[in-house]
Amino acid sequence: MQRPENLILVIFGASGDLAKRKLIPALIELYHQNLMPENFAILGVSRTDYSDSTFRTEMTESINEFLDDKDISKKTINEFVKNLYYQPIDTSKADDYGLVKNKLNELNEKLNTNGNYIFYLSTPPSLYEVIPKYLAQQGLNKNQNRIRRLIIEKPFGYNLETAISLNKKLLEDYEEEQIYRIDHYLGKETVQNLFVTRFSNGIYEPLWNRNYVDHVEITSAESLGVEGRGGYYDNSGALRDMVQNHLLQMAGFVAMEPPSSLDSRAIRNETLKVFQSLRPIKESEVKSFSIRGQYVASKIKGEEVLGYREEKGVNPKSKTETYAALKFYIDNWRWGGVPFYIRTGKRLPTKVTEIVIHFKETPHYLFSKKTNSEACNKLIIRIQPDEGILLKFGMKVPGAGFNVQNVNMDFHYKDISDEKMPNAYERLLHDAMLGDSTLYARGDAVEEAWKFIAPIQKVWESDKSIKIYGYPAGTWGPEKADELIEKQGITWRYPCKNLADDGKYCEL
Amino acid sequence: MQRPENLILVIFGASGDLAKRKLIPALIELYHQNLMPENFAILGVSRTDYSDSTFRTEMTESINEFLDDKDISKKTINEFVKNLYYQPIDTSKADDYGLVKNKLNELNEKLNTNGNYIFYLSTPPSLYEVIPKYLAQQGLNKNQNRIRRLIIEKPFGYNLETAISLNKKLLEDYEEEQIYRIDHYLGKETVQNLFVTRFSNGIYEPLWNRNYVDHVEITSAESLGVEGRGGYYDNSGALRDMVQNHLLQMAGFVAMEPPSSLDSRAIRNETLKVFQSLRPIKESEVKSFSIRGQYVASKIKGEEVLGYREEKGVNPKSKTETYAALKFYIDNWRWGGVPFYIRTGKRLPTKVTEIVIHFKETPHYLFSKKTNSEACNKLIIRIQPDEGILLKFGMKVPGAGFNVQNVNMDFHYKDISDEKMPNAYERLLHDAMLGDSTLYARGDAVEEAWKFIAPIQKVWESDKSIKIYGYPAGTWGPEKADELIEKQGITWRYPCKNLADDGKYCEL
Repeated sequence: MQRPENLILVIFGASGDLAKRKLIPALIELYHQNLMPENFAILGVSRTDYSDSTFRTEMTESINEFLDDKDISKKTINEFVKNLYYQPIDTSKADDYGLVKNKLNELNEKLNTNGNYIFYLSTPPSLYEVIPKYLAQQGLNKNQNRIRRLIIEKPFGYNLETAISLNKKLLEDYEEEQIYRIDHYLGKETVQNLFVTRFSNGIYEPLWNRNYVDHVEITSAESLGVEGRGGYYDNSGALRDMVQNHLLQMAGFVAMEPPSSLDSRAIRNETLKVFQSLRPIKESEVKSFSIRGQYVASKIKGEEVLGYREEKGVNPKSKTETYAALKFYIDNWRWGGVPFYIRTGKRLPTKVTEIVIHFKETPHYLFSKKTNSEACNKLIIRIQPDEGILLKFGMKVPGAGFNVQNVNMDFHYKDISDEKMPNAYERLLHDAMLGDSTLYARGDAVEEAWKFIAPIQKVWESDKSIKIYGYPAGTWGPEKADELIEKQGITWRYPCKNLADDGKYCEL
Repeated sequence: MQRPENLILVIFGASGDLAKRKLIPALIELYHQNLMPENFAILGVSRTDYSDSTFRTEMTESINEFLDDKDISKKTINEFVKNLYYQPIDTSKADDYGLVKNKLNELNEKLNTNGNYIFYLSTPPSLYEVIPKYLAQQGLNKNQNRIRRLIIEKPFGYNLETAISLNKKLLEDYEEEQIYRIDHYLGKETVQNLFVTRFSNGIYEPLWNRNYVDHVEITSAESLGVEGRGGYYDNSGALRDMVQNHLLQMAGFVAMEPPSSLDSRAIRNETLKVFQSLRPIKESEVKSFSIRGQYVASKIKGEEVLGYREEKGVNPKSKTETYAALKFYIDNWRWGGVPFYIRTGKRLPTKVTEIVIHFKETPHYLFSKKTNSEACNKLIIRIQPDEGILLKFGMKVPGAGFNVQNVNMDFHYKDISDEKMPNAYERLLHDAMLGDSTLYARGDAVEEAWKFIAPIQKVWESDKSIKIYGYPAGTWGPEKADELIEKQGITWRYPCKNLADDGKYCEL
């Protein structure tokens, strides 16, 4: 495994939640595994008035609270935090960026980091245009054989127009190659493994097309509700928060053609081609290609659970969807006519992300006819939890005759991993330091994804005849969602049963 | 599960080993599972001078000794043996068959079995022509809406000529449909499951051909030596005893086209087509398409093990092979150019029967190049022991980059079987009573199989330049056998290591 060149990582929003919970713990993991540069600094920047020393104390506390790795000793933590520095600024004031520049110069000289800087924007999206611009005004955008990169957290834009505008603004001062747009789903081991499974094995590709695949299902379910983030979520919703980025990116990995190399351009060109092949959903079709829902109050294991509209920070008349399900087609030679189904929701019965490849039935029944859904083989790629792969297929029931029974052949990822599974941010930060953007979203792909969901956003916002279905918290979303699935007798895969004891399906 | 019509099963050679160890235990299992006819008799026939009553006592003892099912009560055994009868005759005397006829008439009247008789020939092969002829002379061959069947144990013929001659003789008095040629490998659950796996799943057939399969390997290894059957074995050898029947039949199931129905004619037509498509091995090619070996003395776990030539009943200069390995091709559109490798042997390190489908490598390497044998996916169908199916494929090594590691996805047959796995003779006897000949070898197929191995038999017998390689007992056979495999870097699959502490490879 490679160690990056010496560099300084600047985290804007360093006093925020993401830095504490994810970034700093990921960085110390990399440090522990000797995957940080020989010389490096992590420069925290935000409004809060820390000194280097108070920042280190703060981050030590966060590490103790959020780091989930008993192998990392106190000594390692103490060594690591010595690489932390801090610069308070008002991020909205252009002049303050001079302070950042001075601090960088100083650290650069001290640490011999060759002017290599990565700027991580862990800030409210409103600053995504501001910070890069002011950094550029200090000349900090110019790479010239040095590392000068921006890492930008989601959401990248709020809709197609804002995404285009943001890309345009950034490209005034930066090259596309300098911009790393985080999609933390792509940092997940099992999403990457989907890529390896497809292309390191000779046996999947021949089956991976319209001749043998009946339909593809991608689910990302959360059991939690909005958990105190009601204010943020009520301005976002499932379509923006999950579908436009994570679920479509996963679909891109499922559907892409084999790239000719592992080069990030080669791979991202292929996912872009998938997005470009998405059959646009016309405004008049939104009703039949999508379903939205919102969780309503219910009882789970005897306990009352709030409905979305009762959550703190949520408009009591909110029309924001906490559940979204979509059907779409990829119009190319590989996938022509194969429906893809995507769903995501909060307050579903369990936390699970999985991709299900439903294969077609055999062309001829030799054995006694089974129901449709039993008769087709399924390959289930479990992204989380219990990462692994499961193949459902028919085998002979022992005894007389030739009776067929469905069985599972499975593989659990944890069986090969001696070490703990690296988390998404470890992988993504390490890649960004190495200059590998494979697992980051490229501007053109982000715009394509927004373009695809734009008609749905528009119609959901403006057309009052499009219903929002209420589903009791702890169930698998609106019952209506089954109607999206084309074939008779086929439903979504339900990895577990509904959990609600009590609650009502309704229209909101 | 179906119960057969009322009938009488006549076992010739009823005092022999097979009847005691396999047939009677299988029949009581069927009885226990309510799979025997409502009314039935089992009529033992042989030279030994038993009465009904002494035969019952004998068989009760065999059941107690060889029946491996604790669920069968004493009461069931007592009930079952009441259905046993016995008729001593001299099987070589035509007139004695009148006694059989009389006894059958008597039982038939008593049990209302409608003249339904099945004759099981569990006798030395020399009687396979004699008994059916004498039965016919008593008119016992004529079916006329009744069950009149012959079940014939292996070996069916000693070579092509004798097999043709035996078929011809039998067909003078019986229809092909009346003749059930046992191949107990076809009675094995996992061999049948191979058929179900291939044809009840949509995902295997598309891969099951020359486009995706690199080569196929079929192994039947025994850890035992000749175990007191040296006299018999020395006149047979691995090619006759295993390859001509069991291994080629399994190859037939692996390679066949999908039949249009489960009808025994449809299925057996397809396996016949495979045998008819075997590319004949010319006498001049025998050397490069086959290897023979004989185990020699060695030490296993500190204990001296006899060589084959030292075994009781074996000619000390014997040239009989205890190991045979073959390469062959199936010249049809599905398999053109795909080598099949078959091997079998005694005194190998373990008892295992398995079929390995070696898939081709990916058409393009995205990931770091692995060795040939690692890079290809393998589907391993384990016939015995630990019946099941194992798929070897590549997955991502957790952590940075895209490194690939081979992993196993497996399924153990015992996981779905609540009950014990029925043994081969249970299945085969039940099928024969029901008139289902699917798992029995048809005359034309048997002849094709003999025809295929005839040149090998001939050259091995006559050409002194064809070596017999000595392999130490407890090893995987002659080292030379690896040379049969065409591609560099590919060897036979070795499910476990050599066992011999000590011993010499040699030429005999």
